[in-house]
Amino acid sequence: MNFIDKLSAAWTTNNSLLCVGLDPDLSRFPSHLQGQPDAIVTFCKAIIDATADLACAFKPQIAYFAALGAEAQLEQICHYLRNKYPHIPLVLDAKRGDIGATAHQYAREAFDRYGADAVTVNPYMGFDSVEPYMEWADRGVIVLCRTSNAGGSDLQFLDVGGKPLYQHVARLVAEKWNRNGQCALVVGATFPEELAQVRAIVGDMPLLVPGVGAQGGDVEATVRAGKTAGGAGMMINSSRAILYAAPQAGEDFAAAARRVAMETRDAINRFRG
Amino acid sequence: MNFIDKLSAAWTTNNSLLCVGLDPDLSRFPSHLQGQPDAIVTFCKAIIDATADLACAFKPQIAYFAALGAEAQLEQICHYLRNKYPHIPLVLDAKRGDIGATAHQYAREAFDRYGADAVTVNPYMGFDSVEPYMEWADRGVIVLCRTSNAGGSDLQFLDVGGKPLYQHVARLVAEKWNRNGQCALVVGATFPEELAQVRAIVGDMPLLVPGVGAQGGDVEATVRAGKTAGGAGMMINSSRAILYAAPQAGEDFAAAARRVAMETRDAINRFRG
Repeated sequence: MNFIDKLSAAWTTNNSLLCVGLDPDLSRFPSHLQGQPDAIVTFCKAIIDATADLACAFKPQIAYFAALGAEAQLEQICHYLRNKYPHIPLVLDAKRGDIGATAHQYAREAFDRYGADAVTVNPYMGFDSVEPYMEWADRGVIVLCRTSNAGGSDLQFLDVGGKPLYQHVARLVAEKWNRNGQCALVVGATFPEELAQVRAIVGDMPLLVPGVGAQGGDVEATVRAGKTAGGAGMMINSSRAILYAAPQAGEDFAAAARRVAMETRDAINRFRG
Repeated sequence: MNFIDKLSAAWTTNNSLLCVGLDPDLSRFPSHLQGQPDAIVTFCKAIIDATADLACAFKPQIAYFAALGAEAQLEQICHYLRNKYPHIPLVLDAKRGDIGATAHQYAREAFDRYGADAVTVNPYMGFDSVEPYMEWADRGVIVLCRTSNAGGSDLQFLDVGGKPLYQHVARLVAEKWNRNGQCALVVGATFPEELAQVRAIVGDMPLLVPGVGAQGGDVEATVRAGKTAGGAGMMINSSRAILYAAPQAGEDFAAAARRVAMETRDAINRFRG
């Protein structure tokens, strides 16, 4: 099953648009895991098990693993996800962007090494920096469009022919780059009006929407702005608010994560109809 | 010594603007290294030793290591470079770009884990995605501006207020982002006229210039367009043309790499005066 079909099925099966981000930060781990050699894997597996029936996708952020030299642990976590929850899409958040020959190496990293169903990429270097990922015909390519950080406006809001650059990117991807139906876009939850603009441009294309939770995006405004006519079309990501829901609670971190994940899923669902 | 000073010293000491890129591709390794467990490290160390007196910088491309699961080998190679050739800047080509908290993780990866003197980054997410790298005050931040691939024009050539986007990025970095004098830009050799435009905007800011060698950029046009008044200001990168100068030559791969590196350095130097 390809990425888009797998995502659509997960929206239905788990009645959820929630994407659970996996950003392991050792300093925020529960005390009983501090100093354990397999803390990252133990922590992430517990979060996955606690939320797998509530999520439409899992999204490991590779930077957190790379900073710790923990690629082997990321491999283990991805292997666990693919085998235990093969129906939940695995999105590798890597935001890669490089010339074709190098992009091919990054595609091997994401799809062959980690077995991701989809990977995030940066559009600044153009279509030939994105095309190599599409050789993996069953995988998804999620292109940065409008990001959730304040500085995103520095380039993305520049005026190009009367429209901001991010809308140009949305149009480029929807009309040209998405030849094989593999594309999705990253559009932050911090700008609901812009999310609505992108939705109007790209039809039913899936949107990965970070910025809810620790980044402060408003759930109601986000869902109303970004949903498709069918009330889906989004992976609304929350990472830190779920992972570190009970930073001082010792053994209960997974239960706390589940509670927040369920609250977030349900809050989202209230505005899908 | 900070990155810019170290680079300036290397330009002088080695009388060179040549940056040697390290893109290990196992399928192009000499036959006697094929299948050896330490082939990547052996190959890269031999290239480094053969060219260290000819280069102003070394630039490992992290994608080639990531595709192979060879982060430990990259650590070894970086450690070797820093210890044996501490006067030659180590540029990690990673083209990272993410929100602040995540960018901080990528900065830890580049600067603490690999000990890079500088790292390449993508400007699409704006200043707050670049700023975290600047906390490492002695390191360099090399921002993508005009890339050497054909598809680079898709976004970088869009008209923003009468000028192409890449010139806007050059101006942003030169006038706003380069607060601490840590910044450099990536400008491809495949567009000498655009290289000249960037040089006119950014003064003496160092430029990392890929696209000479396997990518076909013209050395004379590149040097004339990109040099500073002092005849320097560039890291002109060549990777594959040096690394795989003698793909069938067995033991002589390092000697062949040295010959091509010397020819390239000397060709560059002919047009610096």
